[in-house]
Amino acid sequence: MNAELIAVGTEILLGDIVNTDAQVISQGLSELGINVYYQTVVGDNPQRLERAIREAKDRADIIITTGGLGPTLDDLTKETLASVFGKKMELHQPSLDRITEFFKKIGREMTPNNEKQAWLPEGCTVFVNEWGTAPGCGFEADGKHVLMLPGPPRECTPMWEHCAKPYLYPLAGGCIVSHSVRVFGLGESAMEDRLHELMATMTNPTIAPYAKTSECFARVTAMADTEEEAEKLLAPVVDQVVEMLGADVYGVDVDSLEQVVGNGLRERGMTLAVAESCTGGLLSKRITDLPGASDYYLGGVCSYSNDAKMKLLGVKKETLDEFGAVSAQTAEEMAAGAAKVLGADIGVGITGIAGPGGATEDKDVGLVYISVYFKGELITRKTNNSLGRDRVRNQAASTALDLIRRKLQGVL
Amino acid sequence: MNAELIAVGTEILLGDIVNTDAQVISQGLSELGINVYYQTVVGDNPQRLERAIREAKDRADIIITTGGLGPTLDDLTKETLASVFGKKMELHQPSLDRITEFFKKIGREMTPNNEKQAWLPEGCTVFVNEWGTAPGCGFEADGKHVLMLPGPPRECTPMWEHCAKPYLYPLAGGCIVSHSVRVFGLGESAMEDRLHELMATMTNPTIAPYAKTSECFARVTAMADTEEEAEKLLAPVVDQVVEMLGADVYGVDVDSLEQVVGNGLRERGMTLAVAESCTGGLLSKRITDLPGASDYYLGGVCSYSNDAKMKLLGVKKETLDEFGAVSAQTAEEMAAGAAKVLGADIGVGITGIAGPGGATEDKDVGLVYISVYFKGELITRKTNNSLGRDRVRNQAASTALDLIRRKLQGVL
Repeated sequence: MNAELIAVGTEILLGDIVNTDAQVISQGLSELGINVYYQTVVGDNPQRLERAIREAKDRADIIITTGGLGPTLDDLTKETLASVFGKKMELHQPSLDRITEFFKKIGREMTPNNEKQAWLPEGCTVFVNEWGTAPGCGFEADGKHVLMLPGPPRECTPMWEHCAKPYLYPLAGGCIVSHSVRVFGLGESAMEDRLHELMATMTNPTIAPYAKTSECFARVTAMADTEEEAEKLLAPVVDQVVEMLGADVYGVDVDSLEQVVGNGLRERGMTLAVAESCTGGLLSKRITDLPGASDYYLGGVCSYSNDAKMKLLGVKKETLDEFGAVSAQTAEEMAAGAAKVLGADIGVGITGIAGPGGATEDKDVGLVYISVYFKGELITRKTNNSLGRDRVRNQAASTALDLIRRKLQGVL
Repeated sequence: MNAELIAVGTEILLGDIVNTDAQVISQGLSELGINVYYQTVVGDNPQRLERAIREAKDRADIIITTGGLGPTLDDLTKETLASVFGKKMELHQPSLDRITEFFKKIGREMTPNNEKQAWLPEGCTVFVNEWGTAPGCGFEADGKHVLMLPGPPRECTPMWEHCAKPYLYPLAGGCIVSHSVRVFGLGESAMEDRLHELMATMTNPTIAPYAKTSECFARVTAMADTEEEAEKLLAPVVDQVVEMLGADVYGVDVDSLEQVVGNGLRERGMTLAVAESCTGGLLSKRITDLPGASDYYLGGVCSYSNDAKMKLLGVKKETLDEFGAVSAQTAEEMAAGAAKVLGADIGVGITGIAGPGGATEDKDVGLVYISVYFKGELITRKTNNSLGRDRVRNQAASTALDLIRRKLQGVL
């Protein structure tokens, strides 16, 4: 079973909105074990919409459309699908009653064009829209399954969950389950290189490498008749991938480094404080993106100026004079200073040149020192990339989190 | 001239990510006056990719692909396009040199599969990738224009702007110019309400309202034979829009509130320090997203704990006891404390409940106090929205910046 999504809406083709409906439905189909081979977006134009539908009819078992169910003249999804599948349109009285009722409730006059929304292809299953006016529907014809949902995400998402998904349950044969092995400290190509032979020999589960900002992950996916069987197929392969990637794996099915670190600190009852220069608050922001960070996070200092480094963190003037603000020594005094001044078990110090300006004769843009004070011990790393301000800063913040993660997991 | 976008990436079909590249490119094409009739998403599968390309070749003048240019086995966009258009692949030595150099710079070993990224269709125009490793390219064949861009948005967006768009200029007929009037403190619908009559009477220029996180903007767009003529049409309308929206306009064609505030401080030789509780470093991060922020930004304190508020910022214990950490009084002492401890002209204090936890009997999730200490004067605001942690935090940070902006522009 494979599906094709067709979003109908000129506003997507103009770039006014992003096609988030496609994400919601694709995720759901993936959970049902139904493959999505194509997503298409087409405007409110009957000829081009018909072409997209005919193409989908030719190559997919299930066609799911979003959008074009509204009351206006350019809403043509139902009519075009009905015509391609040789179906007549008929008035669905319960839907018309609902729409009439809706307008009464909101105290607005129902303009005549709203009746259009209650006309549906003959013999279809009606998807009642509890979140707006236009109903959706599903039908089977010419050996294909056709489902229509409204376009606005606040209507499409609940109707997908409550109407379309249950409609598809009988069609979903197997079950697809995947796990993500999250990695920091190894590039995507290096990761693939390590997994290459294993990947090439696998068909079920499959292993696919992905890159994210400053990190990457391997997704292991299995198909089986039941979730339990899929998990059985997955377990040994996930273990093997984790073993092959070693200490660079920071977690399986976790959200982020900050989450892993946060959970680790919470479990151990440990506290954290940070001192940031070039990352300017980014690390602190990422830590506090997580609700409940106050359980372990005491606070931070963004010491952008030398003065702030000395005054708030106790970095020594001699250190700044002798080694400079961008140096391992300064990073270490910042890390220890943050822990001390805020009374935390762990302190982080980050200082560097995020760029594009600020390079000196012996210090390039992208040079960053990251130091972690971990219960009296100092661990310091240098990173150096020239991938632009954002990535320099992100990598530095991630490196700090990863050093704490490695200490907590006992792999450093 | 019409274009079709093809995004290549199984992760979009699985619903792991949203196809935001399509939005960026569609917006840009719309500005160039090039119609987008279809957007297609296809996975990393050579047969299905070929089918999508053949379909696009049949119905579009311009094909723009995103994704599938990377080093791994399943990156097949270039190879498949070259084969459909009867082109050989050849090694592009300057690209290989760049990639080799890139790995040297980041201090990682370059695995052999990375060379693949430097193989491009013969005779193409190479789009140098300054934001990652995989170059893009463009070529003309069989009367069609083909452009390829990398998939990661942080690479795709700048390469679209700097490489693909200029490549398309000669193909775009007229000239479209637009200006954005940026607004904070007014919702999109309220903005539209004010501009409604003007919008309805306009055909060239046109005015379109857009919403962004915590803010909105009006885009005024004119079409003409030359840029100069377009600018002539735009000037009076932009002035009119700015006048109608009044003090809520923070700038025209500016990037962000932080940029307007940064420029204002730099011009006046003024300095800034911040103290953040619920925003946890987000404001500091946003200020330092801009290169050169050290000209005016001295630093910040993320005082997540009460202890940090007292110790680092001098917030009084009595204030915390009497009014609580989330109060106008605490925000004010934080603002004044930040300015004092860092020796800045302006200090910001933000304290609130970002949620989802942390609500008390008399203080709801979403309640935030924002105070600005401006050369001895204190200005304090309360915000209260229940749009979720991210938006609560973003709105608080933006409100702080907007208060400074209004003081600097003399409209507060």
